Amino acid sequence: MSYFRPNIEAMQGYQPGEQPREQGFIKLNTNENPYPPSPRVLDALRAALTEDLRKYPDPLSQGVREKAAEVYGLRPDQVIVGNGSDDLLAMVCRASAGEGDLIVQPRPTYTLYETLARIQGARLLSVPFEDFARLPNGLVQKGAKVTFVSNPNSPTGTVVTTESLSELADRVDGILVVDEAYVDFADFHSLSLLDRHDNVLVLRSFSKSFSLAGLRIGLGFGYPALIDGLLKVKDSYNLTRLSQAAALAALGDLNYMREMVARVRATREDLSVSLARLGLEVYASQSNFLWARCLRPPARRVYEELKRRKILIRYFNHPGLQDCLRITVGTPEEIEALVRELRSILEEAAMS
Amino acid sequence: MSYFRPNIEAMQGYQPGEQPREQGFIKLNTNENPYPPSPRVLDALRAALTEDLRKYPDPLSQGVREKAAEVYGLRPDQVIVGNGSDDLLAMVCRASAGEGDLIVQPRPTYTLYETLARIQGARLLSVPFEDFARLPNGLVQKGAKVTFVSNPNSPTGTVVTTESLSELADRVDGILVVDEAYVDFADFHSLSLLDRHDNVLVLRSFSKSFSLAGLRIGLGFGYPALIDGLLKVKDSYNLTRLSQAAALAALGDLNYMREMVARVRATREDLSVSLARLGLEVYASQSNFLWARCLRPPARRVYEELKRRKILIRYFNHPGLQDCLRITVGTPEEIEALVRELRSILEEAAMS
Repeated sequence: MSYFRPNIEAMQGYQPGEQPREQGFIKLNTNENPYPPSPRVLDALRAALTEDLRKYPDPLSQGVREKAAEVYGLRPDQVIVGNGSDDLLAMVCRASAGEGDLIVQPRPTYTLYETLARIQGARLLSVPFEDFARLPNGLVQKGAKVTFVSNPNSPTGTVVTTESLSELADRVDGILVVDEAYVDFADFHSLSLLDRHDNVLVLRSFSKSFSLAGLRIGLGFGYPALIDGLLKVKDSYNLTRLSQAAALAALGDLNYMREMVARVRATREDLSVSLARLGLEVYASQSNFLWARCLRPPARRVYEELKRRKILIRYFNHPGLQDCLRITVGTPEEIEALVRELRSILEEAAMS
Repeated sequence: MSYFRPNIEAMQGYQPGEQPREQGFIKLNTNENPYPPSPRVLDALRAALTEDLRKYPDPLSQGVREKAAEVYGLRPDQVIVGNGSDDLLAMVCRASAGEGDLIVQPRPTYTLYETLARIQGARLLSVPFEDFARLPNGLVQKGAKVTFVSNPNSPTGTVVTTESLSELADRVDGILVVDEAYVDFADFHSLSLLDRHDNVLVLRSFSKSFSLAGLRIGLGFGYPALIDGLLKVKDSYNLTRLSQAAALAALGDLNYMREMVARVRATREDLSVSLARLGLEVYASQSNFLWARCLRPPARRVYEELKRRKILIRYFNHPGLQDCLRITVGTPEEIEALVRELRSILEEAAMS
């Protein structure tokens, strides 16, 4: 006899990218920022290491809401703070999609959406991209409770326009989640959607551009009524005191973030050129990773060979998108090491 | 038109105890520990303030699982780590109770159970205690997916025996959650339930005895198959790097925790005597708070008067248990201040 719901019995848990406990890997597999967090964040954390840790955190992270509202030109009641944006993704499913309800996403995209749909016992419809620069038509589905669009998209790094998202927001039933986890690395963002769409939830993450994956901080922006509904299903104290202190300090030092982002973008362009020279098919990326296709040797072997040489990247084999690699943009030195090993692997394969 | 499920529309969110942003309150309302966390925890946190915060945490908190297994005499696969034990409570509901499924609890108890049941769209049956030292018979319900027992119970501070929990575990359908958030303050715990019940999940919290409410750390113990099911619905990276570091250090310094607990227990006995002398009806407590009834002046007025005097306690008005106050055990100085103000409030009421 099982103690779990049938949908839980039937599902696999989400598989995060490998976090090797062994030292010495070049980690280009989980889209972390290669640069450290702002020194001001570390200072704020040091200052927060007091006996006050014995007390509960502010359940709403009100200070962070207020600061984020100021920074992004919103009101505090348009902001919700998550234990990572994954926490916010879970909240929107929990609040809006019951058993048998419909959740829609393009394919390929962030694989956590599917896991969250399964946890809810919801139906998931995945609509394949025909062209990564355009939203597939089939995304508009009658009765959909939640429609997910990651923009820039993962694992492709590609973007669609704000206009196309606005049009989608007009046409979908239910909530449109615009997951902007990678948007600080892009040429534009879509916060203007909040000017007129009461069904749009825009998500941000501190794990990439702010170099704070280890502290689990995400933001959600939407109409106050949308935010209020999500707050009902929020874990009572979802952010630690330290994560709240770090979030505040990070929002107070945007220039540092922008500088690190500029470096990553520059390295991204270099890497893109290098991969193309090696003969890989590279997609134009607006995020902190590159998505490339490698047929000879097969992408899986490239991934495994790199891992043997202590470089971790991510291997994907999506239907319709076989033999793809996702490479996080590291420091120039890390990327140089990657390109060197990759060249050697490709040369060995060509000779064999 | 609503973007939310009917069960979410109909519910109120969980209302945590007040966390005043204003300084100067004596906080005896949310069962925090009045003593600071172990110096070793603060040292470990300082050491963890490195650029590694840019990287994701270990998704399973494997180091904490291993240390907890060692400390509590279990295997690592019998341990799950939560972002507070609230996170674990949410996981068990999410994994086991679908829409319309039955969740059972005694009444009164921790009010979050009800919120979590509503989020799932589950049916909640609350069975009133007749005697706080005994589990009510009605707790055994055919088809129940989850049965919650908080032991020591909140807000009463009372306990039932391990034998009665073992008998309940044999008789319930589904999972029995034994929420031991306060158990370090009690004379005994019920981990031995895990010797033979594959449907028992025992929960622990670092928010009370370990003085770490601000870092959100909880542990769940159960059979490996039970833990595996819960892992499927866990947020992908639920604990920050810093909370994992703190949990490890706290588990490495149990003596400090036991010393602080001994102080709280001593103050609890003093406070219990003082409250009885003031004419309140006080329940015998095995936790870090006292539950008392106050009829004249009405408990609500006592709560409000104390708040005006910058002392926060909690006021409850449960059906069948009107006019009750829950007072967290603070330092001897805080408790002295409370008793002094309480005496003055009662005297003023007697004269008016």
